[in-house]
Amino acid sequence: MFSDRLNGYLRTAARDDALAAFIVAILLIPQSLAYALLAGLPPQVGVYASLLPMLAYAALGSSRVSSVGPVALTALMTAQAIAALVPADSATPGISATDAALVLAAETGLLLGAAALLRLDALASLLSVPVLQGFSTGAALSIALSQLPVMLGSPARGFNAPDVLAAWWRSGQWGQAPTAAFGIGALVLLILARRHAAALLRRWLTPDAARLAARCAPLAIFAGAVAIVAALQPAEPAAAHGVALVGALPPMRLPIALPPLAGALWWQLLPSAATIALITFVSSLAVSEGLALQRGEIVVARRELAGLAGANLVAACSAGMPVAGSFSRGAINAEAGARTRMAGVWAAGFMALAMLLLAAPLALLPKAVLAASIVLAVLGVAEWAAFAQAWRYSRSEFAVMLGVALLTLFSSLAIALATGVALSIALLLQRTARPHTALIGRIPGTEHYRNVGRHQVEQTQGVLALRIDESLLFTNARQLPGVIAGYLAQHDAQPGALPTRRVLLLMSPVNHIDLSGLEALRALHASLARNGIRLDLSEVKGPVLDALRAGGWSAWFDGRVFLSHHQGMLDEHGSAG
Amino acid sequence: MFSDRLNGYLRTAARDDALAAFIVAILLIPQSLAYALLAGLPPQVGVYASLLPMLAYAALGSSRVSSVGPVALTALMTAQAIAALVPADSATPGISATDAALVLAAETGLLLGAAALLRLDALASLLSVPVLQGFSTGAALSIALSQLPVMLGSPARGFNAPDVLAAWWRSGQWGQAPTAAFGIGALVLLILARRHAAALLRRWLTPDAARLAARCAPLAIFAGAVAIVAALQPAEPAAAHGVALVGALPPMRLPIALPPLAGALWWQLLPSAATIALITFVSSLAVSEGLALQRGEIVVARRELAGLAGANLVAACSAGMPVAGSFSRGAINAEAGARTRMAGVWAAGFMALAMLLLAAPLALLPKAVLAASIVLAVLGVAEWAAFAQAWRYSRSEFAVMLGVALLTLFSSLAIALATGVALSIALLLQRTARPHTALIGRIPGTEHYRNVGRHQVEQTQGVLALRIDESLLFTNARQLPGVIAGYLAQHDAQPGALPTRRVLLLMSPVNHIDLSGLEALRALHASLARNGIRLDLSEVKGPVLDALRAGGWSAWFDGRVFLSHHQGMLDEHGSAG
Repeated sequence: MFSDRLNGYLRTAARDDALAAFIVAILLIPQSLAYALLAGLPPQVGVYASLLPMLAYAALGSSRVSSVGPVALTALMTAQAIAALVPADSATPGISATDAALVLAAETGLLLGAAALLRLDALASLLSVPVLQGFSTGAALSIALSQLPVMLGSPARGFNAPDVLAAWWRSGQWGQAPTAAFGIGALVLLILARRHAAALLRRWLTPDAARLAARCAPLAIFAGAVAIVAALQPAEPAAAHGVALVGALPPMRLPIALPPLAGALWWQLLPSAATIALITFVSSLAVSEGLALQRGEIVVARRELAGLAGANLVAACSAGMPVAGSFSRGAINAEAGARTRMAGVWAAGFMALAMLLLAAPLALLPKAVLAASIVLAVLGVAEWAAFAQAWRYSRSEFAVMLGVALLTLFSSLAIALATGVALSIALLLQRTARPHTALIGRIPGTEHYRNVGRHQVEQTQGVLALRIDESLLFTNARQLPGVIAGYLAQHDAQPGALPTRRVLLLMSPVNHIDLSGLEALRALHASLARNGIRLDLSEVKGPVLDALRAGGWSAWFDGRVFLSHHQGMLDEHGSAG
Repeated sequence: MFSDRLNGYLRTAARDDALAAFIVAILLIPQSLAYALLAGLPPQVGVYASLLPMLAYAALGSSRVSSVGPVALTALMTAQAIAALVPADSATPGISATDAALVLAAETGLLLGAAALLRLDALASLLSVPVLQGFSTGAALSIALSQLPVMLGSPARGFNAPDVLAAWWRSGQWGQAPTAAFGIGALVLLILARRHAAALLRRWLTPDAARLAARCAPLAIFAGAVAIVAALQPAEPAAAHGVALVGALPPMRLPIALPPLAGALWWQLLPSAATIALITFVSSLAVSEGLALQRGEIVVARRELAGLAGANLVAACSAGMPVAGSFSRGAINAEAGARTRMAGVWAAGFMALAMLLLAAPLALLPKAVLAASIVLAVLGVAEWAAFAQAWRYSRSEFAVMLGVALLTLFSSLAIALATGVALSIALLLQRTARPHTALIGRIPGTEHYRNVGRHQVEQTQGVLALRIDESLLFTNARQLPGVIAGYLAQHDAQPGALPTRRVLLLMSPVNHIDLSGLEALRALHASLARNGIRLDLSEVKGPVLDALRAGGWSAWFDGRVFLSHHQGMLDEHGSAG
């Protein structure tokens, strides 16, 4: 049975998956080292986080092409969480950064797993588009800025803009020439390769082969850097002209163990883990949903949660760090033709093989070259156009986007996210609190009623016809009687107007009435009745009417409910008015 | 000029105002003493808070009949704030309860004033009906329970149910017989007077006079209690048979001074003051709006803020405590015929006069009698029927109401309110996150389109007509493409169905589209286009269409927008499908 399926797989999809996995692995090797360094961890942690977690996602996840492993965003969040725990100045004994990363991965995995069990996938919707876009742009800038001193050979380190700039200023040194030569040289070559390699290679290769070969260009650049380092200083490579190198990786042994079970550490890291879990889920889901939409596939949010939970728990038990779905690797995996989640298994295999074969040359890779590759990767994610679009669409959402980006850059990722969520909710509350209302009239010759201010319409004497463009909720309910009273006063002040006998509310935009809205409707009904005015409703939605009936409104409501607004306007009492 | 207006006032409204003020003062004398004791303050603080603050509200406020002064709710909140500051066990020197009350009043006044300047009156809408009703019921029970040991003569004190019950248990004493006789006797007589005094007096008086005279019944009961105490122990009244008495009030001198300007104290009390300010505003506004609605008057929320701010600042400078609009006194003021805010000035005058004349007899009033009057007053405010109504209308809002009531009773008022606001917002988010969607069809022979599941309607082959009963917001935007895909799959799975060529969304319930909603619409449009399906919209509201145009949607939107859904269904492409 299983062997049948395996044979089927080997006959059909295996070749495509393996080829895509090879291309992904070429990107993954430097990224795994770089993101571990970005998180303030030894480079091999990134390698370990790229092996077994991929298998766990392949077993449990939902997306066929998502590539789960170390990513820049969670690496930066891990760095900030560890920095808050172990201040750089004080040498607190007992807490190592690798232990903290393991605990973070374990907690992230447990939280994601709990969210999957409790069906909390809807929580992801708390992150609105402006918050996500502001956050990813701010984080990209923050990561690029943190890599700049590494690229130039300055000892300055930090996880947000003020820290990095202050450290750079204090160090009194812009960088170091040989390191900067590697860093800037690699950046320029990587940019040139990305822009022109495919076009250049097409002179000799078929377009498909050229595109694939161009994907290997970064590997050639890394190999070149290693060759230069080896040529310059073969005897003592670790200090080649003062250029910081990745250094010898410990022998691959994939240590399997439970993460450290220290209660205090778990408690201290829990808030950071909650933020990482939320961002891991939302950013990974955005990647896999985006890819699925292109491929006509479906991603199940709960299975995505389960896959990410499994990947993080496995990372916590195999000397790793928090992992998530990578935007760049997922896109390359899809483009290179991956067909099933087995591509992730292949990629892990290639990764392990590469580590066995390439450990020696990788030790000679300058950190500045890795930093250059991070800078290029994250700046590709920054969404500049999104700011312009938000500015045109909604000034308040633009303000949220900008605020979140600035907080991400100048404060911490967690504060930026929390503020963004709070602002999004505040905007939503404000929107429902100030509903748009419209006096409506009949478009002549039809049964359609539209805003008096926007269309040429007919109004009926003695009937105030209004549309309230919002659900009646606690945020706006208290204003309802006042708003109607304002329209009544305005209406009756017109010269020659007959006194209003009925108020007819078009309820089709009212999607819900909560208890506060019900009370407001009752107060409106009572105050109109006191002035001899009847309150009628039209086009009340089924679920809303059901709720009103359940709330016992028949005990006090004297008006009528019409299926269509036009019928309501033609009502005998109305036409007599 | 001024004398003209004064003469005019004296000719017209003065008699009515003065009469109403006299009735209010009869209620205010015991309430001012009782609420000061409830707040853990000397009784004269309540008296001072009933004099000048009323004048400030008369000058700045908006309601004609609201009666501002000490109220049970803010007295309990003051007590909790002071108790958190000065734990009963530890004798912290330096901070006196009266100082803390002055600072609370000053901060409450400043916060209300700032809210008036910044037009933050809409913040009141954060308190939904279930939160307010749960809160007032829980607070009423909490206050009644805190007065029970006072009424029965037990030394147990506390400001929430667990505290009171624990203290009562620890005291090992249910009460003390002579005190309990006063307390229970007063309670029974007050209940009898409220129920039967007016009917009884109507035998001898006109109905109006009987109603007014019945209002004086509590005064007679208090006078009776004082007479009994005086008769029992004329020589040493303060310890009459162990019955705790109000005791000699210090000579009236109305000390005018700035509140203590201790930075640490102000900082510690600020969170409590913010809660008191919010509750003061919302509860006072509820009272004055309720009364204004009955009288056909208008209350301006910002002037109400200003009036309450002035009253609290004056209270802070005249040896008072936080003040708010009283439900019971406002209602009695209106019923007794008050016509202008000058009634408050009269009431303050009567109050001052009473304190000058009645200080000696009031010293003999047993505290148990005051406690009985508080129990009766607050239990009248508890909204039992509201719980039954909420249960029928919405289980989740009932849960919020009950939760807030229980937290108010068993925890602190501030925690209960914060939880209630958070739960209300969570319910609103959840509601917008799970929008009701309906497949719609044409009611035969009309141009009306209704839910297929609720009405006998006709559907058109090849056109999927849907209504989404919610604004497109970040809380639900991510689900939109999935929801439509689900309908499409269901539609195409019907036997004999033509493949869907168009999706037509009826947009009349969509009151707003935020940036996340715009992105979701774009993703939906793209995924439908990939399957050769056109996305059309009908009955898009003016403001929504304006925003879509500003957001540059014409760059990607290929469908059409119809003024009416019926026109959209008749579109040539649709009818061909």
